[in-house]
Amino acid sequence: MGKFSNKISETVIRRMPVYHRYLTELIESDVERVSSKDFSAITGFSASQIRQDLNNFGGFGQQGYGYNTKQLKEQVDKILGIDKTYNTIIIGAGRLGSALARYKGFRTSGFMVTSLFDIDETIKNVSGIEVKPMRQVRDYIKEEKVEVAIITVPKEACKEVADILIDAGIKGIWNFSPYDLKAPERVAVENIRLNDSLMTLSYYMKEL
Amino acid sequence: MGKFSNKISETVIRRMPVYHRYLTELIESDVERVSSKDFSAITGFSASQIRQDLNNFGGFGQQGYGYNTKQLKEQVDKILGIDKTYNTIIIGAGRLGSALARYKGFRTSGFMVTSLFDIDETIKNVSGIEVKPMRQVRDYIKEEKVEVAIITVPKEACKEVADILIDAGIKGIWNFSPYDLKAPERVAVENIRLNDSLMTLSYYMKEL
Repeated sequence: MGKFSNKISETVIRRMPVYHRYLTELIESDVERVSSKDFSAITGFSASQIRQDLNNFGGFGQQGYGYNTKQLKEQVDKILGIDKTYNTIIIGAGRLGSALARYKGFRTSGFMVTSLFDIDETIKNVSGIEVKPMRQVRDYIKEEKVEVAIITVPKEACKEVADILIDAGIKGIWNFSPYDLKAPERVAVENIRLNDSLMTLSYYMKEL
Repeated sequence: MGKFSNKISETVIRRMPVYHRYLTELIESDVERVSSKDFSAITGFSASQIRQDLNNFGGFGQQGYGYNTKQLKEQVDKILGIDKTYNTIIIGAGRLGSALARYKGFRTSGFMVTSLFDIDETIKNVSGIEVKPMRQVRDYIKEEKVEVAIITVPKEACKEVADILIDAGIKGIWNFSPYDLKAPERVAVENIRLNDSLMTLSYYMKEL
């Protein structure tokens, strides 16, 4: 892919995990081939939308054949970069950090949680994963070549923690703190905004 | 608002919580008035985008004055329906359910968690909130007029649990199970797809 595919819109990128998800289900149900019409019905996106999306990356369908599920999933996974693994740490060993440490979805996406960090040095272990003192995080990132950090600290601490991580060389941040983390140029950030989702739910309930 | 505003696109709706978030910050910093230009710089949306979004609901700015932050936030909250409170329960008292039970953001969005439910009847209390046996959920929803349920059960149990909740009269579901819950007509559903977000992070890391 390289840097030149940066112009692909975020909307297209956010549909790729949806393709991944449904292709995984089709493969698990032993479906080897899916027509663009059926794939459209499953995903809820129009057939031309799917074609356009995939054309951004070269296009993978064959006229009159549809898509080979395994081949297409391999391509989608490659586009998403989940065909490799990322050494991942969690910052904050509270309830959310602990819940995430046990989250199985990480493994299927290639995110391998190797350690948790907390400023409370009395916490030694959570969900079978060692909890290390926060003051060691900088060295750990450098020595273990950690690429991804999941932030679950309180809002007030988020910026300071992120600065330390970025300075130590982290490449991706999955931020659960209710703080709007802006990514510097060489770091990817996904802010998880649980409250935004709740408000959207509230809106749609009002409209029922 | 009523049913006729249903035609407002999801993209517009999903920008409303962003307005809410930044207006709250402005008000907390004692900013009473914000020009559409400044509000555009803060939110990252263009001034004309903001004007268009708000025009969907009547429009709230004044030429040459900009926006009164408190008044605009009140309007946005009303649009989102978060000026009222929702009686909320959590299904599943595992780590994620417990983490969510302690999540402070619920209160500011009007979601009041009154009880957790679990099939494991040995769990009695989590984060200071009573855990009730799952077999009582139907009666509890009806008697306590519960409107929202947060699902944190394993993927395999999600559909069955949702059917029980919907049958008992729940109006909104915030689903954390990695199962693609489809909403029947009279129920609003927000599926939280943590894995989709992780894959997006992976993509953007690859593009760095």
